Amino acid sequence: MKDLKIAVIGYGYWGPNLVRNFTNLENSTVSHVVDESPDRLEKVKKLYPSINVTSSLTEILENPEIDCIIIATPISTHYDIAKKALEHNKHVLVEKPMTNSVKHAKELIELSKKKKKVLMVDHTYLYTGAIQKIKKIIDKNMIGEIQYIDSTRINLGLFQPDVNVLWDLAAHDISICSYLMNENPISVQAVGKSHTDSDFEDIAYLTLHFKSKKIIHFNCSWISPVKIRYMLIGGNKKMIIFNDLETTEKVKIYDTKYKTKTNPKNDRQILADYRVGDIFIPKLTTREGLSSMVEDFVSAIIDKTKPISNYDIGLQVVKILEAAQRSITNQGKEVKI
Amino acid sequence: MKDLKIAVIGYGYWGPNLVRNFTNLENSTVSHVVDESPDRLEKVKKLYPSINVTSSLTEILENPEIDCIIIATPISTHYDIAKKALEHNKHVLVEKPMTNSVKHAKELIELSKKKKKVLMVDHTYLYTGAIQKIKKIIDKNMIGEIQYIDSTRINLGLFQPDVNVLWDLAAHDISICSYLMNENPISVQAVGKSHTDSDFEDIAYLTLHFKSKKIIHFNCSWISPVKIRYMLIGGNKKMIIFNDLETTEKVKIYDTKYKTKTNPKNDRQILADYRVGDIFIPKLTTREGLSSMVEDFVSAIIDKTKPISNYDIGLQVVKILEAAQRSITNQGKEVKI
Amino acid sequence: MKDLKIAVIGYGYWGPNLVRNFTNLENSTVSHVVDESPDRLEKVKKLYPSINVTSSLTEILENPEIDCIIIATPISTHYDIAKKALEHNKHVLVEKPMTNSVKHAKELIELSKKKKKVLMVDHTYLYTGAIQKIKKIIDKNMIGEIQYIDSTRINLGLFQPDVNVLWDLAAHDISICSYLMNENPISVQAVGKSHTDSDFEDIAYLTLHFKSKKIIHFNCSWISPVKIRYMLIGGNKKMIIFNDLETTEKVKIYDTKYKTKTNPKNDRQILADYRVGDIFIPKLTTREGLSSMVEDFVSAIIDKTKPISNYDIGLQVVKILEAAQRSITNQGKEVKI
Amino acid sequence: MKDLKIAVIGYGYWGPNLVRNFTNLENSTVSHVVDESPDRLEKVKKLYPSINVTSSLTEILENPEIDCIIIATPISTHYDIAKKALEHNKHVLVEKPMTNSVKHAKELIELSKKKKKVLMVDHTYLYTGAIQKIKKIIDKNMIGEIQYIDSTRINLGLFQPDVNVLWDLAAHDISICSYLMNENPISVQAVGKSHTDSDFEDIAYLTLHFKSKKIIHFNCSWISPVKIRYMLIGGNKKMIIFNDLETTEKVKIYDTKYKTKTNPKNDRQILADYRVGDIFIPKLTTREGLSSMVEDFVSAIIDKTKPISNYDIGLQVVKILEAAQRSITNQGKEVKI
Repeated sequence: MKDLKIAVIGYGYWGPNLVRNFTNLENSTVSHVVDESPDRLEKVKKLYPSINVTSSLTEILENPEIDCIIIATPISTHYDIAKKALEHNKHVLVEKPMTNSVKHAKELIELSKKKKKVLMVDHTYLYTGAIQKIKKIIDKNMIGEIQYIDSTRINLGLFQPDVNVLWDLAAHDISICSYLMNENPISVQAVGKSHTDSDFEDIAYLTLHFKSKKIIHFNCSWISPVKIRYMLIGGNKKMIIFNDLETTEKVKIYDTKYKTKTNPKNDRQILADYRVGDIFIPKLTTREGLSSMVEDFVSAIIDKTKPISNYDIGLQVVKILEAAQRSITNQGKEVKI
Repeated sequence: MKDLKIAVIGYGYWGPNLVRNFTNLENSTVSHVVDESPDRLEKVKKLYPSINVTSSLTEILENPEIDCIIIATPISTHYDIAKKALEHNKHVLVEKPMTNSVKHAKELIELSKKKKKVLMVDHTYLYTGAIQKIKKIIDKNMIGEIQYIDSTRINLGLFQPDVNVLWDLAAHDISICSYLMNENPISVQAVGKSHTDSDFEDIAYLTLHFKSKKIIHFNCSWISPVKIRYMLIGGNKKMIIFNDLETTEKVKIYDTKYKTKTNPKNDRQILADYRVGDIFIPKLTTREGLSSMVEDFVSAIIDKTKPISNYDIGLQVVKILEAAQRSITNQGKEVKI
Repeated sequence: MKDLKIAVIGYGYWGPNLVRNFTNLENSTVSHVVDESPDRLEKVKKLYPSINVTSSLTEILENPEIDCIIIATPISTHYDIAKKALEHNKHVLVEKPMTNSVKHAKELIELSKKKKKVLMVDHTYLYTGAIQKIKKIIDKNMIGEIQYIDSTRINLGLFQPDVNVLWDLAAHDISICSYLMNENPISVQAVGKSHTDSDFEDIAYLTLHFKSKKIIHFNCSWISPVKIRYMLIGGNKKMIIFNDLETTEKVKIYDTKYKTKTNPKNDRQILADYRVGDIFIPKLTTREGLSSMVEDFVSAIIDKTKPISNYDIGLQVVKILEAAQRSITNQGKEVKI
Repeated sequence: MKDLKIAVIGYGYWGPNLVRNFTNLENSTVSHVVDESPDRLEKVKKLYPSINVTSSLTEILENPEIDCIIIATPISTHYDIAKKALEHNKHVLVEKPMTNSVKHAKELIELSKKKKKVLMVDHTYLYTGAIQKIKKIIDKNMIGEIQYIDSTRINLGLFQPDVNVLWDLAAHDISICSYLMNENPISVQAVGKSHTDSDFEDIAYLTLHFKSKKIIHFNCSWISPVKIRYMLIGGNKKMIIFNDLETTEKVKIYDTKYKTKTNPKNDRQILADYRVGDIFIPKLTTREGLSSMVEDFVSAIIDKTKPISNYDIGLQVVKILEAAQRSITNQGKEVKI
C-alpha cells in the first residue's frame, strides 16, 4: 500500500514533535511542512532534507497528492485551516483544542461527516501509558465509582497568544476526564485573572458539576514558579494519584477508604472510619503517547477505526471551555452546558 | 510574680499539646484539665500527677484561682464556653476558628473589651518559623506586591464532627493570608461536596476576591489519599513556595518573574517574557509554633501586648468562613463580605 | 502481679525516650532516674514528679526493690555499669552497641547466664514496622536470596564523645543485617577519616565479605549537609528499598530482575536481560519501635522469651565493629572475624 | 572556512547523540557513520539522508576528506581505532574512558603529539551546566577547601559488554573529581562483585586516598532497582550536593559547617559545634553538555585551544580505573598510583 502523504502546518512548539512521529511511523510520509517563518523552514530542511517546505497553505490544499493535513498553529486559526482542508478532501488532525467555539467545532464535525474524511483532535495525553493504565483500572472497577477528580496543572509560561490558560492547560484535564468518566458535566463555574497587560487569564480555576452531584476541579496557571502536573482520582474503593512529572512512579493506586455516618442516636455526632492501606505502582509502557496518537490517526484513515481522541471528545472539550469562558466573564456564575 | 493559673477545657486531639506547652512555659501553671471522658482524664493524671482533673466546667468557672481558660473543644461549643469564661472574668484562648458565626465572634470581642480580659484565637500557624520568615520577607518588600496566593491543604480525615472541611482546614489558610496581606477580600465564592452520610462537605474550594482584582484560592479536602500542605505566594518580583511537609526546605524563594504585553502594532499578538532564576531556602527557627503562641498569650495578659493571633484576625477568619458557607449553599454564588 | 521496677541510667539524648516508653508500658514502673547533671534531673522531676532522681549509681545498685537497670550512657561506660548491675542481680537493657570490645561483651553474656538475668541490647530498629515487615517479606522468600545490601546513613552530627561514626551509625545497619540474614560475614574492610581535632572518624565506609561471596556495604557520616537513611536490599527475585525518612512510603518492593550471561559462541559478548516491573508499598504499623522493644524486654523477664534484640545479635554487632576499627587503623586491610 | 568533515564510528547508545550534536554545530558536518549493523545504518539514513553510511572503517581512514574520527564503540576497541585514526592523520574524539589500559592511553597521547592532531576524550559531564557551576563555586573559594567527595551512581543496567561497572560509571565520577580538585590521589582501594554469569563486577565501591589524607568514595551499581546520581562535596566552609536527577534543583549549596575539638581539660570529651544555615540553588544553563563538548572539540582543532576534557584528564581516569581493577582482584588491597 502507498504511504499516506502528510503535510504539517505550523512548525513552532509542537510541530517538530508531530513531524518526528509521523516520520517514524509506517504507512505515512511527511511530504510537506508549512510555516510563515523562513527560519523554521530552514530548520526543517537541515533535519529532514527530503521534506518540502513552503509558506503557502494554498499550495498544500491544492496538491492532490497530499492525503492529510496536520494543524499545529495557534488555536484561533484551527477552524479556518481545518475547514479548508476538509473542503479539499483532506483528512485532518488538529491540535487541541479543536476550535475556539462550539459553533465552529460542530461545523467541522458536520463537514467531516459529509466529506467522509477523518477529523481528529490531538489530545495526546489520552495515549500516554499513564492514562491508558488508569482507564483500564477504572474500567475493571478496581477503584469503584469515581467520587471526585482534582487536578493541578501549573508552570511558568508558555503564554498562549490567543487564548487563556484554561484553553491551553485545562484542555488536557477535560479531555482526560471525558475519556475516563461515563458522565458529562451539566454545568461549570470558573474564575480567573490576568496578571499582565494581556486580557487572557494566566491563572484560572474551573469546577465541573455533575447530575450525580460529583465535582471535578482544575487548577491552572502559567505563572507558577514550579511545574506541577498532579491529578487525584478518588473512587469509593480506592484512589489514584497521577503525577506526570514522576519518572517511574507516575501512577499510584492507594488502597484508601473513608466512611462516615452520623450517629443514629445523636445526629450531631459524626462517626468517622477511614483506612490507609498498601500502595501499588504499576509499570507503564514507556512508549511516547504522541507515537500512539499518530498511529491511531493513520488507523482511523486506513482501517476506518474510531480513534480514542475522536471528535466527540474534541467537541466536549470545546463545550466546557466555552462555558468556562462565559463563567469567568460573569464572575464565576454557574453556566449550564 | 505569681504564675498564671491555667485551665484547659478539652483533652482530645489538640488539648494535650496545649497542656504540654503551657506546662513548659514560665509564668504559667496548668492547674486543671476539664473533659467529659474519664479515660482522657486518667491519661492526664498519668502524665501530670500534679494537674487536677474534672468533668465540671462550672467548677472551673467558679474557681477564683483560675486566671485563664483554654478552649480546645469542638467548634460549636466555643461560643458558650468562651462567653461564660469571660463573664467569670477569665482570660480566654480559644481554638481556631473562634466561633461558628460572625455574630457570636463579635459578641465575644465586645464582652472581652467590656471585661478587659484577653480574648485570643489559637491560629498556631502564624507563629511557626515558616510564616514568621515569610512575613518578614514580604514586609521587607523582597517579593514585591503579592499577585496571588494558592493553597492546597488536603489529607485523609480527621473529619470534624460539627463543621465542614473549610472551617477546619481553610481556617489555617485564611488566618495566614490575613496576617500576610494588607488587604481584606470583598467577596468569596465556594463550592463543596460531602461524599459521606454527613452533611458537612469533605471537599471544598474557596476563592477570595479583592478590590485590587487579586484572587486567592484554597483547595481543601479530608478525603485525599495523601497529605499535602502546599502554598504558593506569587509576588511581582519574586515568588515563595511554602511546603509545610518538607523538613528542611519548608520555604523556598524563587527569583522568578514574568511579563507579557500585547504587541502595540498587533494587539492579537502577545509578547511574553519570563525569567527563572536562583532559588533561596532560608534557615528557619525550629521552635514549635505552639510554644510561641502560648507565650504570646501570656504576654498579652502580663505585658498588655497585642498578640499576633488577635481577635481581629480571628473575626476575619469567621467572616470569610461564614460567607463561604453561604456561597456553598447557593451553588457557588459570589457572597459579599 | 507486681510491676517491674525500672531504673534508667543516663537522661541525655535517648534516656527520655526510654523513660516515656517504660512509663506507658503495663507491668513496669520507672522508679528511678540516675544522671550526673542536676539540670537533667530537674527536667525529670518536672515531667514525672513521681520518679525518684539521684546522681548515685551505687544507691540504685544497692536498692533491692529495683529489678531492671536501663543503661543509656556513653558507650565506653556500658561495660562497667552493666557488669555491676548483673552482679547486683538486676536485669539489664543496654543502649547499642553493647560494649566497645568483644571481650567485654562476652564477659557480660557469661555473667548474665550465670546470674540468670536478662541481658538485652537496645537495637530499636529491629522493632520498627519497616524492619518487621522486611523480615517477613524475606522469610516468605518473596525477594528470593539476598544478593547485596547497601546502606547510606549520613547526617550532620551528633558527634559521639567516645567512639567513631561506625560505632554510632553502622551499629544500626549491622544489627539490621544480622537480623535479616542467615549468614555472618567472614571478614570486613573499612576506611574512615576524621575531619576535626578529634581522633574519631566522622566519615567511614564499611564492607562486609561473606563466604557466599556476597558483599554488604555501609556508608556512614556525621558531616553530611543532609540526612539520609537509605538501604537497598537486592534479592535475586525482587528488590527492596527502605527509606526511613519517608513518611508513608518507607518500604518499597520492586519487581525488578536482571540476568546476564556470556554468549556461548563468543565469550567476550555479554547478553543482558533485565526487567523493571510494578512497585508495591506495603502499609506498615505506626507503632513506635521503641515501644515494642521495651515490651520485648519485659516479656523476656516475665515470660522467659528470647528477645528479638538478644545478646547474640548484640555480640555480633560488637565483633564487626571491633574488626572494622582494626581495618581502619590498618588502612583498610581485610580483617577476619 | 570549510566545515570539518566528521565520521562517527559506532551508532549504538551514544553515537546518535554525537551525530545529532555535530549536525547542529557550526563549522562541522557529519559526512559518514560507520557501524557493523545494517539496521542501525538504515536508521541513520532515515533520519539523515545526507550522511553516508558504511560498515568499513578502512574506507573512512583512507578517505582524505575526513578530518575527524569520533569513536563511540565498546571500550576495548578504543585503542585500535584511535591509533589507526591518528596514524591516518585524523583528529580523534573518543568515548570515555579513553582506553582500557594506561599503557595504551599513553601511547595514544604520544602519537597525537607526534602527529600534531587533537586527541580528546568525551567526558561529557564536565561540560554540563551543573559541573561548570560547581567548578566556578569551588574556584571562587565559596565552599573553602574540599574535605570529602562522596558519590552514588547506581541504576539498573546497561551492562557493558567488556568492562566492569567502575569503567562505566565511576569513569564519570573520576573525571569530575579530577576536574574539580587540584590534587591527584596517591592510592586507591576497591571491592566489587559480579552477580551474574559474567566476570565483570556489577557492583563496586572505590575509595581514593590523597596525600592530604582526604578520602573520596564512589558507589557504583548496575543492579539497583532505582536510578541515583547523587554527589556530596564537603568543603570546610560550605557543602554542595549535586543531584543530577533533579530537574531544577541539581546543585544545592548548603551553608553548613561543623567543628569539634577535644576538651583541653578532658581529652576524652569532645566539644561539638555545628551549624545548619541557608540553602542556595543557583540557576544553571540549560544547554546540553554534549553540545558544549563537541564545540570544545572543534575549537581545539580550529583555534588550537586546550579542551576542558583533555587527554590529561583522560589519562588520569584510566590510571585510577586500572589501579582500582588491580585492587578488586586483590581483595581490596591498597594500590599506589
